[in-house]
Parts: sequence; structure tokens; C-alpha cells
Amino acid sequence: MYFQNEVVKEIIERYRQIWSIGHALSLMGWDSETYMPKAGVEERAIARAELSLLAQQLILKPEFVQLVDKASGLEGLNDYEKGVVRVLQREIRIMKAIPPRLLAELEKTTQEAMHAWRMAKEANDYEKFKPYLDKIIKLTREKADYLGWKEHPYDALLDLYEEGLTTRDVDGILEPLAKELKALLSSVVHEGRFPQKHPLEDERYEREWMERVNLEVLKIVGFPIGERSRLDVSAHPFTISIGLDDVRITTRYEGFDFKRSLLSTIHEFGHALYELQIDPGLKYTPLAEGASLGVHEGQSRFWENVIGRSREFVELIYPILRKNLPSVGRFTPEEVYLYFNTVRPSLIRTEADEVTYNLHIVLRARLEKLMIEGSVKAGDLPELWNSLMEELVGVKPKTYSEGVLQDIHWSMGSIGYFPTYTLGNIIAAQLRYHIERKLKLSEKISRGEFESIREWLKNMIHRYGRTYPPKELLRMVFGEEYSVEPLVKYLKEKYVG
Amino acid sequence: MYFQNEVVKEIIERYRQIWSIGHALSLMGWDSETYMPKAGVEERAIARAELSLLAQQLILKPEFVQLVDKASGLEGLNDYEKGVVRVLQREIRIMKAIPPRLLAELEKTTQEAMHAWRMAKEANDYEKFKPYLDKIIKLTREKADYLGWKEHPYDALLDLYEEGLTTRDVDGILEPLAKELKALLSSVVHEGRFPQKHPLEDERYEREWMERVNLEVLKIVGFPIGERSRLDVSAHPFTISIGLDDVRITTRYEGFDFKRSLLSTIHEFGHALYELQIDPGLKYTPLAEGASLGVHEGQSRFWENVIGRSREFVELIYPILRKNLPSVGRFTPEEVYLYFNTVRPSLIRTEADEVTYNLHIVLRARLEKLMIEGSVKAGDLPELWNSLMEELVGVKPKTYSEGVLQDIHWSMGSIGYFPTYTLGNIIAAQLRYHIERKLKLSEKISRGEFESIREWLKNMIHRYGRTYPPKELLRMVFGEEYSVEPLVKYLKEKYVG
Repeated sequence: MYFQNEVVKEIIERYRQIWSIGHALSLMGWDSETYMPKAGVEERAIARAELSLLAQQLILKPEFVQLVDKASGLEGLNDYEKGVVRVLQREIRIMKAIPPRLLAELEKTTQEAMHAWRMAKEANDYEKFKPYLDKIIKLTREKADYLGWKEHPYDALLDLYEEGLTTRDVDGILEPLAKELKALLSSVVHEGRFPQKHPLEDERYEREWMERVNLEVLKIVGFPIGERSRLDVSAHPFTISIGLDDVRITTRYEGFDFKRSLLSTIHEFGHALYELQIDPGLKYTPLAEGASLGVHEGQSRFWENVIGRSREFVELIYPILRKNLPSVGRFTPEEVYLYFNTVRPSLIRTEADEVTYNLHIVLRARLEKLMIEGSVKAGDLPELWNSLMEELVGVKPKTYSEGVLQDIHWSMGSIGYFPTYTLGNIIAAQLRYHIERKLKLSEKISRGEFESIREWLKNMIHRYGRTYPPKELLRMVFGEEYSVEPLVKYLKEKYVG
Repeated sequence: MYFQNEVVKEIIERYRQIWSIGHALSLMGWDSETYMPKAGVEERAIARAELSLLAQQLILKPEFVQLVDKASGLEGLNDYEKGVVRVLQREIRIMKAIPPRLLAELEKTTQEAMHAWRMAKEANDYEKFKPYLDKIIKLTREKADYLGWKEHPYDALLDLYEEGLTTRDVDGILEPLAKELKALLSSVVHEGRFPQKHPLEDERYEREWMERVNLEVLKIVGFPIGERSRLDVSAHPFTISIGLDDVRITTRYEGFDFKRSLLSTIHEFGHALYELQIDPGLKYTPLAEGASLGVHEGQSRFWENVIGRSREFVELIYPILRKNLPSVGRFTPEEVYLYFNTVRPSLIRTEADEVTYNLHIVLRARLEKLMIEGSVKAGDLPELWNSLMEELVGVKPKTYSEGVLQDIHWSMGSIGYFPTYTLGNIIAAQLRYHIERKLKLSEKISRGEFESIREWLKNMIHRYGRTYPPKELLRMVFGEEYSVEPLVKYLKEKYVG
């Protein structure tokens, strides 16, 4: 049995109502992005706000908080029980820390800021967004202070997105990585083996046929469509866990450059697999989700990059591509492999490749740190952004829209989120290293034998859900926490090896 | 303004959370029948049960109940305000009346009974279901006693499904109707102008083409797909209002006998139109739904039967049918009209035509009354059923599955629900009579001008939502309550006129 302690059992019992609201909110989120009629947006927004508030009220109910407090003082709890207490204590602490006044102000400001950001990006007019960003920086700093921090106010924000992550961690990861990647990028571009452009990028495809590609590939990697999952279409691809037996992903069909749809589908599969492989014994509990954003992104990047962009995988799925996408027939598997792995110093993070991607994160993390310290104002950002882009990636934005205005995150008040993307890339490479030691990864991919890979992930990581905080989980699995080395090694082997 | 009184405004304000749970439950219901992966069923069931309970807890919160009590004593409330108070008082009264012990027992029994019913129906073995039905009858009688009644225990149950409906009403409607319909059926069959069978019933269709027919017809009658509504596919067609700007219908494609899909789609459109035309000022309030099951069914039957099965409508959509369904080309519009209106004494309620349908309801209502009185046990039902079928419709089931086991309702504990179907048919005919007096209905249909019909329905009925109890609403619109006469007149004119 997972939960034996009577206090914890009572917590779990009461938590079902809160879990149920989460279930509903997830479904509502999925529906909003997929099938909801346009005009439904107003009522949906009200319902989501009301139910979020209701969930918060239930978590902060004195009886519930007292139960959690009581459980936290108990000796001899097992790991699952400890996990439940840790996760709930953390949620309660965060909810209690931020005064409702500040929460409301942040909510209002970010609602307006998201709108302003959209307008500003469209019009390439930074001034439209600047005052909102200044306000968000100010309020977010306040939030950090309420949450509490020891070494740096950014710590408080990082921890929101990745439990236990500190500015010291981020600096220790990103700065050495930046140095390595800059050198690597210059070698790759110099060597020219991996092209900057590929003719397949401009080839158009029929949506119906591309759907078949995605479905066939998902079948190969082992996605239980119809049974425990779905693939739908949305403007921005995402994964959502509605329950441990109902995990849905979406993709998009732009009509050209087919790898964008395919690799994004495999990426979301990686996220979904994590949720699908959580131990069913954790159903309805606060542990029934991934350990953290970083660990989650590790799963998606592992499937997208380590597997999906590998030579063996391209060879494996080449017949599927060729059958459904006529233009692929004009290229050899090796050429398609290069198409999957173009390396190009470019301006837009979401379109960046494996070599340059993390440099975009380095830039953002450096700026976020300065913003939260108060040493940089919104007005300073465009210039800083551009000079950092030149320093790190070697290209310079000509417009705000392809520079400082490209991401939605800051307008949503998500400061401290970006580093988790790089944690994902790091963890993906750590996974590769450790799985390789157990299984012959390349051979498995070549043969399309993904079950043993899924099993490894399940047994080592997925089944625990949120039982352990991310750093502890990583120590259990890798014997160390976030480590840059495997990523650098992987990229060097692949791109200049 | 709709709500001005401060007490009512506070009620409305607090009700938003309850409304939001309802919104979520509706979406979950829709998803369960349309897109949910199979294995999601367990978690969905838990979430639905928890959220239903949560909504009930919120409604029964002492502060909320006190507010409603306070409002009920106020003078000078407007109709909307009175409506809110009436609807909530009624809900509170019903929730408080039934002891949790009985509710739990009913829940458990009906869960088991639904399963047993399915098995029994499949195996044509009534014994499998009988003990459950006896228990349901006993518990439902208990429920009726807790709810309270004056003349007959069935009153308490009827009122659950149709506010204010009594056994006296039902007897006064169904018995005269039965007499008329039996005579009419015999004339129709004798005359033979409306066939009992039609060759189009056996014609197969391509699902994709039938979808186009449904979509084109929905466009003609005015269903705002994509904007405020959707059409999806489910095993049993239904309409669900997720919000006043998000009302979804489903249909099914069996692959043959295309009128089943088309008329069912038009039926659901009728339900949906009601919800879509409720006054937006009633959003988020307890009034944001239809007045009752009977009034709702009146809308769906009006569109399905009075409009959808009319000669003018068949002529109007004939080109659409012919374009998409090759077999239709072999028949004249008049022949298709007869196909839409076959009359056949048959065993299955859901497949019955306009002439025989209500006789199936008469049978069920008579039996329900006896069951609840205690004068009939589950063991007596099969024989009673069969002899009543012979008496009323003139055919006799050879198996339990096509007799007493055909409907799911009793296994769900829904005793008292069936009469609302006939109320729907009655109201549909009343609508026809009153709309005809204002607009030239046949001409409007011939020209495909449905806007004025929709407007009439909106202004006279739809916009009020649940503001008035059904009988009061009918008196306002028709100058009388449920009246059999227009239905009898309509059927006579159409089938033997």
C-alpha cells in the first residue's frame, strides 16, 4: 500500500475534491484550445477563475492545513506519504505567502500586459509594452520578497517553476554551457557538415497525409491513442494530463517544413509518456503529476532530440515519411537526417536548433536576473537583448518583434520559467548517457524497440510522479543533479564528433 | 437591469461558483460521450461524483440558504429576481428532503441496476434485472414520501422532472390522448396512405456525405456552428449547454435509414436553440437554462416533427438530400415526405412515429403510477407490459428486450420522467397552433425563412430561461397549460385530414 498513515489517508481522502477541480480545469484548458466554439471564451474564463479560486479555498481550509501540519510532524512516513506532505506544504506556503491584493494586481496587470504584448509585437512597437513590463517587474519582485529568498530574489521565482532551483544553480549551469556552446556553434558553422538551410524546409505537405505520419510514428514509439490518450490540433502544441488514464497531446499543421509538426508531436509524446507512466497507485493524489517543469522537459527533449533527431530514428521512419510525403522521396535518409538537424544562428528561440537553443535561454536568464535585482528597467532591455544576441548567437535582431518582444512569457508574469527549458535539455542528455549504459540505445532505436526505453523511464523516473523533489530524484537516478557535461558531450559527438 | 435587489445580487454573486461547477460538469459530460479516451472513464466518474457533491455542499451552505430564505420574504422583487429565489428554494428543498443515507443507497442501487439492466437486456433475461427494479421501486417510493405529496406519491416524482406536474395532470392528458390516438392509428393503418415501411429505410449512406446533409440543414435552420455551438458524434444523440454561448449537440451515423440521423440532428437543434436564445442577462445565474424537461422537449419536437417532418420542409431540403445521397434521386419529394412519416405499430418507443409514440408513454406512465402506489411489483411488469402494448398499440413483444427491458430509465431510478416526452409533443403542437396564428408557418418553411420562427420562440419562451415555472410560462404564451387538443388536431389534419 502507498498510503497507510491515518492522517495522510485523511488528507488524500479530502484531496479528492481538489483533484477533481484540477481534473475539470485541465479538461477546460484542453477544450479551450481545441474544440470550444469561439464565443464560449467569456464563460470559460469566468468558470476557470472561479474554480481556481475554489480549489485554493479548499486547500487553505483551516482543517485541511491543520491536517497537513499535523502530518508534517509525524515520524516514520514512507516516501509517498512524505511526498504528499511536502507537495501540499509547499503549495500552502506559496498560496499563503502572496497577499490577495498582490495576486489580484498581478492578475489584472498580466491580463492587460498580454494584450499589450500582442499589439506591441504585431506593430513592432516596444513602447506599447514597456510600461506594463516595468509594472510586472516591480510586482514580481514584490512577489519574490513575499515568497522569501536567501541569496538572490530570483531564487524565489526559480523555485516556483523548479522546486529547489537557485540562482547559483542557474549560473553554474548556464555560464559554462554558454562558453561551450559558443565554441561549438562556431565549429559547426565553420565545418558546414550540418547545413544552415535545407530544401525540405520549403516543401509543402497535405495535412491529411502529415496526420498519418504523426499517427504512425506515435504508434511506433508507443502512444495509446483512443485507449488512454488523444492527438488533436491546436495553434500551439501542448500536453495535458486530465487524469493518469487520460493524457492528451496536440500538434499543428502549418502545411510546410514537415519536421516542425513531426518533432513537435514527438516532443509532446515525451511529456505525455511521463504522465501516462506514473504509478496508478498515486491516482487522485497531489503526487499524480511530473516532478517539475525541468524533469518534464527532460522527457520531451529526450524523445524529440535524442531519439527523434537521431540518424537511427530518421532511418527507421524514412519509409513512413516517403510513403506519405512525396517530396521526401527525392532525398536519401542521410539527407533527411541533415534536414532534421540544420544548425543556424537565428533570432527566434522557438525555431532554434539543438546547438543554439540554450544560448537563447542564457540570454533570457541573464536579463531576468538583472530585472529582478532592479538593476535593469524595461527601457534598457531592447539594447541589452540585441547586444547579448550578438555576443551569444552572433546575430542581431532588426526589429523588436524578432528580439525582445518574441516571447509571451514576461507578459504573463512568468519570470524564472525560461531556465527550465535548458534544464530539460540537460536532463535529456543525462538520460541518454544513463540509458546508453543499460541498453544499446542506437540499436533499440534502429529496431524500433522502444518498450525497454519506456520501461527504463517508467521504473527510474516516471512512476514516482511528484514523490521526490527534482534534485533528489535526479540524484537517485543519475547520482548527481543537473549536470552540463553529458549535454556538451552529446552535442560535440553529434555535431563535430 | 435584471437583478437590482441587494440580497438577490449577493445570491447571484455567490452562485457563480456553483454555476462554474455546473459548467465543468457539462463539459465533462460532453467529453465523456464524444472524445474521452476509453480508460478515462474511472477518473471521470470520480471527478463527476466529487464535483456534484461539492456543488451540493455549496448550495446547502448555511449562509447561502439563509440568503435565499431572506430573499424569499422580500416584497417587490421583479420576475427575474423571483425566479432566482424560486429555483434555488426548490433545489434546496429537494436536496434537504432526501436523507444522505437514502441518496447513497439509491446511487449504489442504480449503479448496479444499470449494469444488471444491460446484462438482462442483452441476454433477454428479466430475472437478472427484477430484484434491482424491486429495490428501486421501494427506494423511489421512500424518496417520494420524503419529498412529500398530497394526492398521490407519483406527484412527488413528476415534480422532480417537471416542476408542478401532478398525477392528476398526467391522467388528464394521457388518458384522453390515448383514446384519440388509438382511433387515429387504426384509421391511418386502414387508409394506408402513410406506408408502414419505406424502401429508403434500407438504403445505406456514406457517413461523410450524411455529415454534409446535417451541416447544410443546420445552416438553413440557423445553428451557429463554430461560433456558439458544435455538432459532434456520440452513441446516443444529446444536447448540452456548457454556457449560453457554448451549446453543443451530437448526432449519430448508423450508415442506413438516413432520416434517423437527420431528424435526430434537427431534434437536438431544437433543444440547443432554446438554450442559445436565453437572455444573456441571465448568464451565470440559476435561470440560465430551460424552464423544464417538457418545455425543452416541446422545442425539440417542434423542430423535429412540426417542421422537420412537414411536406414543405422535405421539399425545401430535397435538393440537399439528392445532392449528397444518391438513393434519394430515385424518389420524388412526396415519396421522401412519406418516408419521413411512416406510421407503424411497433414495439420500440425510440423508433416510434408521431402517431404511436405517445401510446408508448401512456403505457409507461400507467405502470409507473402502479409501481409507486405499491400495487404492482417488478415481477408483475412483463405481463402487464405486454397486455398493455397489445391494448394500446396492437402489437405484443415476443422478448423482454423488446418489451419491458427496452428503456434504461427505470434502472437509473428515473421514475416519473417518461411523461415529459408527451408533454413535449403536446407543447410542440401548441407552438404550431400559436405560431401559425402569427406567421404563415408553411410559407415560412417553404421559403426556408426560419428567422421569424426563431424570433417568435425567443421572444415568447426562450429568453426567459427558467424565470417562470413551466405552467406559468405556458399560460403566458398559450393562455392555457398543457393541452391535448392542438396535438390531436395536428395529427388528424396531417394523417387523416
